[in-house]
Amino acid sequence: MIALPYHTPLSPDQQRAFGLPETWTLALADRVRFAELDPLNHVNNVAYLTWCEGARVAYFKHVGLSTYAEGTAEPRIVIRRGEMDWLQEMVADEDYVVATRTIGYRNTSFTLLQEIWSGGTKRARFECVIVLLFTDGSGRMPIPAHVLEHFHRVDGVERRVDAP
Amino acid sequence: MIALPYHTPLSPDQQRAFGLPETWTLALADRVRFAELDPLNHVNNVAYLTWCEGARVAYFKHVGLSTYAEGTAEPRIVIRRGEMDWLQEMVADEDYVVATRTIGYRNTSFTLLQEIWSGGTKRARFECVIVLLFTDGSGRMPIPAHVLEHFHRVDGVERRVDAP
Amino acid sequence: MIALPYHTPLSPDQQRAFGLPETWTLALADRVRFAELDPLNHVNNVAYLTWCEGARVAYFKHVGLSTYAEGTAEPRIVIRRGEMDWLQEMVADEDYVVATRTIGYRNTSFTLLQEIWSGGTKRARFECVIVLLFTDGSGRMPIPAHVLEHFHRVDGVERRVDAP
Amino acid sequence: MIALPYHTPLSPDQQRAFGLPETWTLALADRVRFAELDPLNHVNNVAYLTWCEGARVAYFKHVGLSTYAEGTAEPRIVIRRGEMDWLQEMVADEDYVVATRTIGYRNTSFTLLQEIWSGGTKRARFECVIVLLFTDGSGRMPIPAHVLEHFHRVDGVERRVDAP
Repeated sequence: MIALPYHTPLSPDQQRAFGLPETWTLALADRVRFAELDPLNHVNNVAYLTWCEGARVAYFKHVGLSTYAEGTAEPRIVIRRGEMDWLQEMVADEDYVVATRTIGYRNTSFTLLQEIWSGGTKRARFECVIVLLFTDGSGRMPIPAHVLEHFHRVDGVERRVDAP
Repeated sequence: MIALPYHTPLSPDQQRAFGLPETWTLALADRVRFAELDPLNHVNNVAYLTWCEGARVAYFKHVGLSTYAEGTAEPRIVIRRGEMDWLQEMVADEDYVVATRTIGYRNTSFTLLQEIWSGGTKRARFECVIVLLFTDGSGRMPIPAHVLEHFHRVDGVERRVDAP
Repeated sequence: MIALPYHTPLSPDQQRAFGLPETWTLALADRVRFAELDPLNHVNNVAYLTWCEGARVAYFKHVGLSTYAEGTAEPRIVIRRGEMDWLQEMVADEDYVVATRTIGYRNTSFTLLQEIWSGGTKRARFECVIVLLFTDGSGRMPIPAHVLEHFHRVDGVERRVDAP
Repeated sequence: MIALPYHTPLSPDQQRAFGLPETWTLALADRVRFAELDPLNHVNNVAYLTWCEGARVAYFKHVGLSTYAEGTAEPRIVIRRGEMDWLQEMVADEDYVVATRTIGYRNTSFTLLQEIWSGGTKRARFECVIVLLFTDGSGRMPIPAHVLEHFHRVDGVERRVDAP
């Protein structure tokens, strides 16, 4: 068996080898930590959110939305709402993959889907709405053209969703 | 001004004094920690989930669902899905209240609503589905009668919701 | 019994009532969180460090070393070394007090003592060395005179310790 | 450049390639998480302790002290005291290695040394005393013979240290 390359974007082949049924824009592997276990020896429910957060930051760098460098005129990226499904509990030392892609967008916001996979089964699903603000927080900022282009070309989002 | 009694169920009067527009079954005050701040000096998004988790454990004790003592034949309480709205960002040292009540139930699960309030405004809203399992994890456990009675009498849930 | 005023500097009388054998410059009460429990149902060892961190930030504000406001020319406060003694384990829902005072200083650094008390017994002891840097990180900054005066007058530090 | 194999014991050659000047019993690589950054965009001081904790659990499994499986008659492993030196600050996305070995022992306790390395420099040093208790917590348990043998043969501890 080939070692799982943690913290490194998995290729489509590596994603398949880890059991993901479809290919994701960004799939990152990591391992459950001791500090994430609760008194029942399961992974604490909140830890999944921390994993998704780290994968979002990597995704935002990946699509060119932010470098997270200080002092730059980059958009402020805000999560407005999120729906988490905890599907199957996880235990100590499990390897897992957090997979991320954009599934829809409007003028100044977009919808991300994130899934956590381990041992060939989906353990959690998180769908969230991301809003862009100008650096000074003064108002909502349109999604930059090169990011939209990434949404279309790489993430496979077909077209703009009408605002709800 | 009267000191806010942290970690202690707030009375209806205290809830009103803190700016909650309606009375909740359980409302608990706490204060933002330094460790919860992110590089933008705002409260990290995940911290809200940890606050809700702590308030859920207190609520489950409050309604008599679990004592969280070891070695007892108590239900295993599992969160299956949750929707979080992050409504307004929070900063260092803010006092906040996490308010919790049940808003619906089925045979073996129920829906909790949790809101986070600070400075007279709602900062976050979390609605989640809680499932009860038998202690050994063997299957789903009906909601005990005394807990249902609490849902009706204290939380004000009118009647059973049909399973989706 | 009088309610313990969490997150509020305890008076000498309140400190005594909570079981502290001597009076501290700053003593702050809080309660163990569910998220801090480990698989053995004890408080995770690292949680004590987070409690001490929060109390240090409060102490640094209290002695006038920093307001932690953005954009100010305040010293950067760095912890260089620390010794933690975990003396007695803690469990769910325990109330505790983190007590802090300065016990020695040199030109650009000082030594803090922090103790965690619960149920009349000392649960942990943390002694650490704090170094002050200029805001831009360019070098070590002398302790401001008004802070030294606080060390003498309130914390009861007798005189400067020779550098090791 | 060869990919750093995270979460996998590094061979002596891999340890050297990552910049460790000497070979350690167990050296594990990981990467800084977004959630570990503080308002100054540095890694929070407490995060280093969490990294050391995870590496200790891996080390205890590695030397055969515990499997961390439930229901077994394994020693309870307790950390009694620890000294942390924070030597150089860390930032977002840095790769680091936590290196662990035993440097001394007595009848029922031993001293671990842990170092955190990144970019060829030592970032933190943690030395702690680990005590073994019987499973039921009833008293102190002698270090098992096969673990002592590991301390001698692999960690290179020369002989028993007299109790202080």
